[in-house]
Amino acid sequence: MKVVGVIAEYNPFHKGHLYHLNKIKKSFKPDAIIVILSGNFVQRGEPAIFDKWARAEMALHGGADLVIELPVCFSTATAEIFAESAVKLLSDTQVVNTLSFGLEEIHYNELLFLGKLLAKEPEHLKTTINECLSKGMSFPAAREKAIIKFILENHKEMNIQLISAMLKKPNFILAVEYVKAINKLGVDLSILPILRKGQDYHNKNLTGEYASASGIRQSFLYTRELNDDIIKYLPLSTQEIIKRRLNNYNVPVFLQDYELILLYMLRRMSSQELRSFFDIEEGLENRIKKAVKNSGSLKQLIAQIKTKRYPETRIQRILIHILLNIPKEMLNSRTSPYVRVLGFSQVGSIILKKIKKKISLPIITRASDYKKLNSYAKSFFEKDLLSSDIYNLAYSNPALRIGSSDFLKKVVYLNPSK
Amino acid sequence: MKVVGVIAEYNPFHKGHLYHLNKIKKSFKPDAIIVILSGNFVQRGEPAIFDKWARAEMALHGGADLVIELPVCFSTATAEIFAESAVKLLSDTQVVNTLSFGLEEIHYNELLFLGKLLAKEPEHLKTTINECLSKGMSFPAAREKAIIKFILENHKEMNIQLISAMLKKPNFILAVEYVKAINKLGVDLSILPILRKGQDYHNKNLTGEYASASGIRQSFLYTRELNDDIIKYLPLSTQEIIKRRLNNYNVPVFLQDYELILLYMLRRMSSQELRSFFDIEEGLENRIKKAVKNSGSLKQLIAQIKTKRYPETRIQRILIHILLNIPKEMLNSRTSPYVRVLGFSQVGSIILKKIKKKISLPIITRASDYKKLNSYAKSFFEKDLLSSDIYNLAYSNPALRIGSSDFLKKVVYLNPSK
Repeated sequence: MKVVGVIAEYNPFHKGHLYHLNKIKKSFKPDAIIVILSGNFVQRGEPAIFDKWARAEMALHGGADLVIELPVCFSTATAEIFAESAVKLLSDTQVVNTLSFGLEEIHYNELLFLGKLLAKEPEHLKTTINECLSKGMSFPAAREKAIIKFILENHKEMNIQLISAMLKKPNFILAVEYVKAINKLGVDLSILPILRKGQDYHNKNLTGEYASASGIRQSFLYTRELNDDIIKYLPLSTQEIIKRRLNNYNVPVFLQDYELILLYMLRRMSSQELRSFFDIEEGLENRIKKAVKNSGSLKQLIAQIKTKRYPETRIQRILIHILLNIPKEMLNSRTSPYVRVLGFSQVGSIILKKIKKKISLPIITRASDYKKLNSYAKSFFEKDLLSSDIYNLAYSNPALRIGSSDFLKKVVYLNPSK
Repeated sequence: MKVVGVIAEYNPFHKGHLYHLNKIKKSFKPDAIIVILSGNFVQRGEPAIFDKWARAEMALHGGADLVIELPVCFSTATAEIFAESAVKLLSDTQVVNTLSFGLEEIHYNELLFLGKLLAKEPEHLKTTINECLSKGMSFPAAREKAIIKFILENHKEMNIQLISAMLKKPNFILAVEYVKAINKLGVDLSILPILRKGQDYHNKNLTGEYASASGIRQSFLYTRELNDDIIKYLPLSTQEIIKRRLNNYNVPVFLQDYELILLYMLRRMSSQELRSFFDIEEGLENRIKKAVKNSGSLKQLIAQIKTKRYPETRIQRILIHILLNIPKEMLNSRTSPYVRVLGFSQVGSIILKKIKKKISLPIITRASDYKKLNSYAKSFFEKDLLSSDIYNLAYSNPALRIGSSDFLKKVVYLNPSK
């Protein structure tokens, strides 16, 4: 059986994503596609603009067969932890044999080389990274410099210019993290890179046939409605799901919606409490405490904390971990202790039965089943539940703000006969 | 030297308060009036509609000579703790010899009798109170019932009907708490009750010459501006101070402004964490956790928690202690470990010098001086600072939302030559 895994946020699901899934089907003819989806909070350190149920539905309409939620502790962590925990979860299903991802340019050799190199993590490389970090460089810049130095000294056969250029591209970096995780975990996954169509990851201009998700989000941020600038970049199914949400007064959610809570939390917490969160070290806690006293807005806050070493998304990820009360210890394992199903198609339901027979990991299709989990697994699931309860607070309509939505929602089932 | 103490919230300072201070001056001719003022959060379990600096200024214009802040841990506690800590603070200045308060009807004997009785707290009385509480009665109702029973059995000479009627009046209950505290602490303070003018404490109708502060707040809540309904009940000085605030886009603050933060905090906290707050016992923590999952607004939340035993203001006080992160242990001492000065007149500055010579308790006129406090006193002062930092988050203007306002504000000095 050929099952392809895709790790995604679909924030929101657009025509580029649809192209990716269709291309997998055409070129690889898999029996099924399983998507590991970030839940209500995503890796950029933000809430998803639409909740996980809406995005799972978009994915199923776009061609996914089974959508599994990546626990929020991992979906809001660094690219390394995000990639490793998602690859582990895919592999833990014991049915996926290929991982597919999108790339602007496919340089297979460089990708495999870097993935293997970083999985091994030679002492040499580590030392240079730490030296660069101590000079105040950001982690990606420090790592790039260390990699180039290491290659110059040990692998003169590699194309330095190309590697240097690729290490500046977010999708390539993420792909390297996937290959690295596959090597590190020693799991049996082939890779299937697909050439991306349209705009770069960071490009926020809305032109051409395909747009980036961040461009679409940006446009939403200003209008908070499904405007003409966006609509042409979204498949019909996504448009309909979004329209349904907007009709229920369920507006897109942005980090901005948590401004008051975040300023409050940072004022309330002591420096010592702040240190219990991932990536808060070397006095960053004091920098945060000082900044929040001088800030009346989230923008001011981030501007005052930001350094080369602590770029905006890194700070945002810290803010989300504080918002959701995720202590750093929870990032040690990088392994989801359950398979949480958000939705499936008819094919997906068959795959799910196969998975159930193969694995001992608990599969959760109804939130109430989480009570059967052991206390360790429960602690992770409770963060997913809390993240939904906090996510809902962004809505202005009190009826939508109520909690326990994970218990009220049913898994999304895409019935092809309808 | 005759110095009168007044315990107040002045939320806001109105013509009834002005009448009270003028009456003290006329009838008693004191050398000075010292006011113990609630800071940014008050005893009803709410933010004050205007910050402590504005209200201290109102008090000085109204005739107070020295305004001292009651630490927020006590200003937001039960009537008993509020009264006891404020009486202790007045007495700790070592210059106040008389405590004055307003009453709708003055029944001197009944007041003194009840104050003494409750200070002694006979075993009998306690038992009946606990019996009534266990039946689900509110504390005031349980205490009233126990007092009546006790008097019927032991003090047939007292006027039961009158006492029963008076125990339903908030200002009388508060006065009883003052007399009780004086007896319990054994401090040398006479009492000077003044007949109140105008509306009852609870009356929210705005008619007649005097209005209650809650009536004025109610009217503010709807319009958020200094409208014609309110203006006639406020002294000119109060009107001017409010106008100045409103011109700076500094709108009145209400509990409602913390709705999002409160819903968030209650969803984030575990039942166990909730139990660390005052008055959360007997499973109330679970009741709160359940209610916040089913509530999209503060109104829904309070409605779902409320019982006879836990009336609205009691719940609000709990919410404020959670908001300000005040653990129950901080209410054990009921003694302010410092004298925090918010403002003074020329006479007040002379009184302050006298106090400085007499007492060993640290006097704080500049917030930055708090660093000299011992760690115990610091923990209380830091809650006052935090309460200001959180108070400011209610403003929509980011410039007004910044923290550390206690360090930026100077003590209010009323210069009579101006």
